[in-house]
Amino acid sequence: MKLQAGYLFPEISRRIRSFGAENPDAKIISLGIGDVTQPLAPAIVEAMKKAVVDMGSEAAFRGYGPEQGYDFLINAIIENDFNSRNIDLDRSEVFISDGAKCDTGNIQEIFGLNNVIAVTDPVYPVYVDTNVMAGRTGQANKNGQYSKIIYMPCTAENNFIPELPSPAVGRIDIIYLCFPNNPTGAVATKEILSRWVNFARDKRAIILFDAAYEAFITDPKIPHSIYEVEGAKEVAIEFRSFSKTAGFTGIRCAFTIVPKQLQAYTEDGRAVKVNSLWHRRQCTKFNGASYISQAGAAAVYTTEGKKQCRQIIDIYMANAAVIRELLTRLGYDVYGGVNAPYIWMKTPDGLSSWDFFDHLLQKANVVGTPGSGFGPSGEGYLRLSAFAKPDDVKEAMQRIAHSI
Amino acid sequence: MKLQAGYLFPEISRRIRSFGAENPDAKIISLGIGDVTQPLAPAIVEAMKKAVVDMGSEAAFRGYGPEQGYDFLINAIIENDFNSRNIDLDRSEVFISDGAKCDTGNIQEIFGLNNVIAVTDPVYPVYVDTNVMAGRTGQANKNGQYSKIIYMPCTAENNFIPELPSPAVGRIDIIYLCFPNNPTGAVATKEILSRWVNFARDKRAIILFDAAYEAFITDPKIPHSIYEVEGAKEVAIEFRSFSKTAGFTGIRCAFTIVPKQLQAYTEDGRAVKVNSLWHRRQCTKFNGASYISQAGAAAVYTTEGKKQCRQIIDIYMANAAVIRELLTRLGYDVYGGVNAPYIWMKTPDGLSSWDFFDHLLQKANVVGTPGSGFGPSGEGYLRLSAFAKPDDVKEAMQRIAHSI
Repeated sequence: MKLQAGYLFPEISRRIRSFGAENPDAKIISLGIGDVTQPLAPAIVEAMKKAVVDMGSEAAFRGYGPEQGYDFLINAIIENDFNSRNIDLDRSEVFISDGAKCDTGNIQEIFGLNNVIAVTDPVYPVYVDTNVMAGRTGQANKNGQYSKIIYMPCTAENNFIPELPSPAVGRIDIIYLCFPNNPTGAVATKEILSRWVNFARDKRAIILFDAAYEAFITDPKIPHSIYEVEGAKEVAIEFRSFSKTAGFTGIRCAFTIVPKQLQAYTEDGRAVKVNSLWHRRQCTKFNGASYISQAGAAAVYTTEGKKQCRQIIDIYMANAAVIRELLTRLGYDVYGGVNAPYIWMKTPDGLSSWDFFDHLLQKANVVGTPGSGFGPSGEGYLRLSAFAKPDDVKEAMQRIAHSI
Repeated sequence: MKLQAGYLFPEISRRIRSFGAENPDAKIISLGIGDVTQPLAPAIVEAMKKAVVDMGSEAAFRGYGPEQGYDFLINAIIENDFNSRNIDLDRSEVFISDGAKCDTGNIQEIFGLNNVIAVTDPVYPVYVDTNVMAGRTGQANKNGQYSKIIYMPCTAENNFIPELPSPAVGRIDIIYLCFPNNPTGAVATKEILSRWVNFARDKRAIILFDAAYEAFITDPKIPHSIYEVEGAKEVAIEFRSFSKTAGFTGIRCAFTIVPKQLQAYTEDGRAVKVNSLWHRRQCTKFNGASYISQAGAAAVYTTEGKKQCRQIIDIYMANAAVIRELLTRLGYDVYGGVNAPYIWMKTPDGLSSWDFFDHLLQKANVVGTPGSGFGPSGEGYLRLSAFAKPDDVKEAMQRIAHSI
């Protein structure tokens, strides 16, 4: 009940419905919610069709799967996403789930309510809201920020990379980081991640590293996994998802890496293996991802699947380039969109995020996501998503060009 | 960390693996974990194949679905499962999810940690373990029962129906009931459910009613939904699942009913709508069930789907009859198996549940589920599941007949 008014996206939907009701002829183009628009790759469709047929056959039917996912998928993940980047993982360190939102939301359940969390500002609301719901925070202030949470501002001034908290901030137990970042599109170099890993090792803190957008990295120097940084396995949990990588927002499949070395500490200083805690949590409150979704996810790693998924990502990143270039040409301050599917733009004329949202909706019939919905440091920004259809992106950009 | 040693089913798996390693030629038949074995009904397979093809097509692709599920499924549920039994529900009272284990495990998150829960003994471990994990209980005693939980014994003496707690027990806020019962196979008449609904209304308590096995009811007098009882919408949440009804253990789809009338109360007595709390919880920590699973679930309600699913349930219930009859003929005390897919048998000669489990594994190579795994009142019982293949059930019964 401490939670602030409705989750960001439902509020956006409400305003769109309201505008649409008053303007039934308007063709609204959404660059708002980060939902994919390209159909699934053919290799994935074929694999899922086969899985469905299997489920209807006496010989191949499968009931409950292995609790943490099928080996065929876990092995493909380890080989393609990690071994290829010189990261060794044991199968027991990979937990298949039905979504990174669930995993990043549920992970806090295995930690005590007295732990202090740190988040960036702006931030993906799920990190904060799930901690509020668990009772780990105090009340919200007038900015919508909760007491007992450490907020780390990310603005153009620091290139959207949070500073390490100063000792004056006090105890920090759990740090949420997301790179490539939602919403700012910022990425972290190896040096930046090393700094955080060392900080976490010093403080006995745990990093919750959300890498849901790693597939959109184009710069070969940017790490895709936090485990590319030495020592990260001692302090970091990594979240991955097929939602954006392979268009699985409606299919539901993701995974979380919890290294066996990773330890948390009880209040009296006893070390506890986090892998076992998460394993027990998942065994008790989750019953596995759909076999069909897992079969589809495994196809992402086949030769055809990789090629086809890459083509789809290229479509989205071409959209990102179109958005970036037009907005830059129009004189806006624009960030992200190079290694991430999100463009983070400064609103013009000092408009608030919601005022600029309303302006774009009314004048261009284009929907963005108000930056202030991600936290007070997002005020004065708007997030545009590259996940729309290319023709829609082009039309949206033309309309924006004409509306100013 | 308060949780007792491993979750029941992993421990069973461990013993089976260990026995199998020493006896590689043994053909073990599992009547243990309640997992389905019949392939999906053809109507479901067809619907899911179409859904997969849709997801690969430009025109029919769908990303994130409506947060609480597709209307095509919600409408089918309301019409077939509720309107047909004279229960009205609004669409906003139905929450589609990926499993009843998740829902019955997650539901406690929306209630304060000071609430007192009551569970039957024996009980489906998820109800208890999720409350322990949330911090709502004290430590376990030597029987494995946690302080701050009210346990309601269910034994042959009370026909496996818990008594209403006496006033001496003190405050009760949340009552978990499961009918048809897992593990005992007991069912509750309308009179029994009315008694509980009235008790909850008196105490301002909430009933969490797990009806995952309602499809197995054969007696027309037994209610399938707690909402068949007057006043239940004021006090009860109901959980349903396609896992056993339609063989979805590997597909993942379920739903939960949270009536709008249902209120909880803050510590200072303010009424709060539970529907809104659950809606917010699901919006924040869950991202919807797979479109393919929902498409398959909707096919359960088509004319063909109903007929085909009924045939599959009949196969399982025929298994239940075979198990019941043979064990009764052998002189065992046997319960359940008439309106439920579980048979709850008394162990012979005062053997403990695990000793009888080991005995059956070693002498008959048949796996049951030790009753004590469900709580101390389950000690001296074994649960047998009717979800095996008919030939396996017959062979298992022959082996049991010869092993004594």
